[in-house]
This record gives sequence, C-alpha cells and structure tokens, in this order.
Amino acid sequence: MTDRGNWVSPFDIEGGRPNQDGDFLREEVRLANRNSGILLEALRHDVTPTGLHYLLNHFDVPYVPSAADWTLSITGRVRQPLKLSLAELKALPEKTLRVTLECAGNGRANIGLRRQSMPWMYEAVGTSEWTGTPLRAVLERAGLEPDAIDVVFLGIDRGFDKVFHEYGRSLAPQLALSDDVLLVWGMNGAPLLPQHGFPLRLIVPGWYGMASVKWLDRIEVLDRPYEGQQQVGTYMYRESADDPGVPVTHMRVKSLMVPPGIPDWYTRHRLVPPGPVTVFGRAWTGNGVPITRVEFGVDGVWQDATLALVDGRYAWRGWQATWNATDGEHEITCRATDENGDTQPLEERWDRSGFGNNMIHKVRVTVRA
Amino acid sequence: MTDRGNWVSPFDIEGGRPNQDGDFLREEVRLANRNSGILLEALRHDVTPTGLHYLLNHFDVPYVPSAADWTLSITGRVRQPLKLSLAELKALPEKTLRVTLECAGNGRANIGLRRQSMPWMYEAVGTSEWTGTPLRAVLERAGLEPDAIDVVFLGIDRGFDKVFHEYGRSLAPQLALSDDVLLVWGMNGAPLLPQHGFPLRLIVPGWYGMASVKWLDRIEVLDRPYEGQQQVGTYMYRESADDPGVPVTHMRVKSLMVPPGIPDWYTRHRLVPPGPVTVFGRAWTGNGVPITRVEFGVDGVWQDATLALVDGRYAWRGWQATWNATDGEHEITCRATDENGDTQPLEERWDRSGFGNNMIHKVRVTVRA
Repeated sequence: MTDRGNWVSPFDIEGGRPNQDGDFLREEVRLANRNSGILLEALRHDVTPTGLHYLLNHFDVPYVPSAADWTLSITGRVRQPLKLSLAELKALPEKTLRVTLECAGNGRANIGLRRQSMPWMYEAVGTSEWTGTPLRAVLERAGLEPDAIDVVFLGIDRGFDKVFHEYGRSLAPQLALSDDVLLVWGMNGAPLLPQHGFPLRLIVPGWYGMASVKWLDRIEVLDRPYEGQQQVGTYMYRESADDPGVPVTHMRVKSLMVPPGIPDWYTRHRLVPPGPVTVFGRAWTGNGVPITRVEFGVDGVWQDATLALVDGRYAWRGWQATWNATDGEHEITCRATDENGDTQPLEERWDRSGFGNNMIHKVRVTVRA
Repeated sequence: MTDRGNWVSPFDIEGGRPNQDGDFLREEVRLANRNSGILLEALRHDVTPTGLHYLLNHFDVPYVPSAADWTLSITGRVRQPLKLSLAELKALPEKTLRVTLECAGNGRANIGLRRQSMPWMYEAVGTSEWTGTPLRAVLERAGLEPDAIDVVFLGIDRGFDKVFHEYGRSLAPQLALSDDVLLVWGMNGAPLLPQHGFPLRLIVPGWYGMASVKWLDRIEVLDRPYEGQQQVGTYMYRESADDPGVPVTHMRVKSLMVPPGIPDWYTRHRLVPPGPVTVFGRAWTGNGVPITRVEFGVDGVWQDATLALVDGRYAWRGWQATWNATDGEHEITCRATDENGDTQPLEERWDRSGFGNNMIHKVRVTVRA
C-alpha cells in the first residue's frame, strides 16, 4: 500500500527495548510532551472542552491547509468503487453522537515493568460530540461483494513503527455496516481540528481509540484479513514477547474522579479540609450497556456513589459521592460496574504492552484543617 | 490575600529536591502528562490550531460553568475602586493582537542537571489571536494614585507551591498602562477555553507566559512591591539556591523548526530521503523588535534562511530553508537573531530552575533513499 512497505525501521530498538521499572527514559518523556491527556478536573464537564480531549498520534499530524481537494476512495471487493469529495459526503444524511474515547494504553505507566511507550497514567480519555455520515451509507452505496471479509481504513499519516506504514486499521463488515460507525468531519459543533483528523476521520463508538482512524482518505475492502502493523502488530494483548496475542477491541469498564481539594504544584498531592466533600467523577464501558454502579472508596471501605442520568449509549456516565473527610492521610478510589457485571480490578492488569489496564483510580489525599 | 496565606505546603520536598541528570522521575512525567506543548509540525500554521497552544497550569483549571456572574475588581491605590462585569468590560473598545507566548521553562529538560519541574524540551510555545479590552482603559478609569508602584493580577486558581497562594503576578504601572496589555475574553475568534483562562485573563505581549494571569478576577494596586510567590519566589533566574536572583521577564530570542521527513514512533528520530528538502520554522523575540535573521545549520555549517513577512510586533516570524540532503546521519539546527543583535546560544544556558533556555533547536536526521 506504500512505496516503502518493505522498509524496516533503521531506528527500531525492539531487541533492546525491555519493559521498564522505576524512573522514566527520555524517549518516554518526549512522547509525554507530544501526546496530551485530559486534565482530571475537566471531568466536571459533560463534554470535554475542546483542546482537553486526549491526543495520541503515532506519527506527525499531517498539514492539510484546505479540505477543498480531499477525497475518500472506496476500493477493493465492492461492486462500485467510489471516490467521494467531502461535499458529497456531507450531502448525505448526518448524525451526531456523544462518544467517550479512551486510549488503549491508558494506565500503562501504572504497571510495574511498563512498556517503553507513551507513559499514560489515568488521563487518556475524553468525550466529544462527533458529527458525520454513517459509514454504512457509503458502504451500501459501494456494495460489498459476498467475499468481503475485512474493511480497511487508511489515513495519510505515516512513519515507522518497526516497519514503514501509513496508519491503518480494519473492521469486520458486520461492525462496519452497523448504525453508529461514523465518517466524521465535525467535533463539538465546529470543523475537526488538525490534530483530531481534519478533514475526515472514523469514529468507532465503544472501541479504544486506535480504531478511530484519523486523516482518512482510503477505504479498502478485502477478501482476506488485513495484516497492517497497527492491526496485527501493535494493538494486541500479549503476556510475553512470543505470545501471538489477542486483538485489542472494546474499552473495558472504567471510572475516574476529579481529585478533590487543592493540589501541590510539583507532586500533585491533594489537600482537603475536614468535613463533607463532594467527589465528582465519570464512568464508562465499551460493552454497549449502561454503567449500573459506581463505588467510592476511602482506605478500602466502599460506598455506592449516586449516578447521573445515562447520557446516550456511548458517553460516560456522571457520578458523585459525599465523603466526610477526617484528619489524616487517605487513599480514595472509585470502581465502576456495567450492566454486564464487568467491574474494575483493584490492582493493575498485566499486559506486556500496557493495554487495557482498567484498575481502579487511586488518589492520595491529606486532610487537614 | 487568602485565608491560608501563612500555610506552608505539607508536601514540599524542596530540601530533598536536587536537580536531576539522566532518567526522569514519576513526578516529572505526571506533570508532562498534565501540561501540553505544541506539536512541532504545527509550526506550519501561522496561528496555532486551537488545542495545540502550549498549556502550563500551576494548579487545577477552575470549573467556571458560566461567565454570567464573573466580575473583575480593581482596588488598592486607585482613586475609584471598580467592580466590572464581563458585559461592562466587553462594552469598552476592543483590540485583537496576534501574540506568541512561550513558557519560561521551555527547554528545561535539555539542561544537564535539570530542575525537577515540568520537563519541557522544545514545545512550550504557541501563537494565538487574543481579543480583549486594553488594560489601560480600565486602569485609567480607576485612576492610579501617585504612590502606586505595582499592579497585581490575581486569578482564582490556587494551591501549594512551597506556600499556599492564589496565582498572582504584577506589572510596573508604566507597562500596565502601555497600549498592548490586554484583558482577554476571546481566543482565535471564539470564547476563551477553560484551560486558557475562561472567562477572563491577562495577555502581556513579549513576556514569558507566567505574566499572562488566567482566571483573572482581581487587580490590586500597591504602594509597595508585590511579593507573591510567583513573583519573587518561582520565576527568578538563579545560579544557585542562595542566589537572590533576577526576575524573569521578556522572552529571549528563539527559533524552532518543523522536523523534516517522517518519524519513528517511539524514538521520534527522523528519516529523510536524499535530495532537496524544504525546512520550515518560526522565530520570535520578546524584545519588541523584528527577527532580522534566521540561520539553518547542517552539521555545524550555517546558511541564511529566507524570512517570511513580519506578522505584527508580537507574533513569530516564519522562515524556510532548502537543504540538499545527502546520505548519512546529520544534525540540523536553526538560530535566530533579532534587530537588537540578540542571538541564540549554541549550547544550553545554565539556570537552576531551567528558565530562559533559548539554545538552538537541534534535530537528528537519517538520510537514506
């Protein structure tokens, strides 16, 4: 799919890239400075303020000064290959969905022996209003051939991750033809920003963010499984280096809270005055079912939080709890459960790449008058 | 100014907070995950896309769901204390300025024995269109008393940095009464975003970002020098811990480039094909004079870059250079000089806190067909 498809990275240090414990490497900090997460206090907003939605970009954000010439091509195992302008796409019926997206690597840096990669702690999440054309409308116009078994989405962002490639991911036809996968050009009522995929991206509600390909210009329908690096190489749950792995798909159930009180600048440790404190947070799941319970914990003692109304099928659910804070050092925590009964583990999940770590959120607090 | 002004942080580790060499501490990475910089490829845009302007917030971003009740008070050594609503402020003549802002700590992590703080490498900069009321109009309405010698700006964000305080900074009356210091409510044609100071902030063109106080609700005019922690404690150039220091003020001359070619995901190392490559960048200075020269270097050999038109008094100036890239490993660099003759040093500047490090930008590139 590229003129450099056989290139192996001259920079790859896989062989010498062991998982890390303790202090962080300059490469990890460089990625932390490039990529950005939500500020936990912004969990107060139902829709994440523009600019605070998490960003994880594998390569450079492409420079696209104008969308006038942008096209989306649909080729491969279709009856009618298409090349659509943005204007043609926007002329189709549009849909807006409020969707919570999380990076599959969120929580990676909270794992002992973490993968050398973007060192997310808790912050790789956000909720936006995405506006676009249902993918289904375009795929139905092209018409999938009976032997179509994989639908590939390719962006124009490119670089090395072991091998040279343009960023690509695929979806099974059944999912690609479902109602709520969107070809998106709008975010929070405005045009997409460059860093979020201007002028066109995919949004796959319920899945970790890697599925929602940005700067989308090509859809290729295959009669065989797609084997791009981001599909079969990167985003796999693996116990060890020689584990063939299991694909990363839906977001696991998770919750976060707004750390109460006031921070210390450097340590981010919290100070809370004694007395009743209302703690706010959000909870979400990629299982397509509601969050049915959130528990708020203080030093291991749990109480049920009060849930806000369900806000659509794909957006996080608000919650709050009252804590009667008493003098001393405390660890406060939150834990969500969804209608399937899936709940968060109390401790980190081991994964070699640090994917899917949905352990409970823990915040250290000093209570003092 | 607060009910906790005498509190010393229970979390402070100043005594045990030596400057760091080598690997990074978890606290530094936590700050890197919270704060965010520009993506260097976004230097292609004259105005930084919303959401990519750098962000350095000392404490939590305050939750301000509505600006309806926001007021700005002007008290102290004035003839007529004022309390203005946002509507009253917006009714005054407005002004829009394109301003480049940089964090004083940008480049801190490129200093050997860096300060434990936000580990900026190159990315703490951005350019926006700021719209607001000239501060002068408001100060003239209040009328400074003859003994006024310092004008203090206080935000509602608060926390510990050694001591408890609300974020505050001051300006001398002469600067506060100059034409281009703005009380800002708009950014890039839209309302301020929460993380940029909604609903009201100060913009002090030419100065490092610490002067541009966010979430501004109080101006206090003093007959003595302001001694807030962010004025006399934090933002001082210091050689050593016992150095009384020199205040950090204007931005030093600096330039950055868009790293050419394509990146490796993890190392961010660049690959460029041999042949002519156009390298783009930006250069700025806080001296209030134009950038008059940018040089582009390859392995220590310099050539003059071509400068774009000057874009107002306070915005960065674009530049580009053509590089005939040849096979092998190279270090490319850029260096700006302003009309005052100020230029960038080739190596890091020592400062104990990592402020004002305007050394040249260096990028490692592999050239290969």
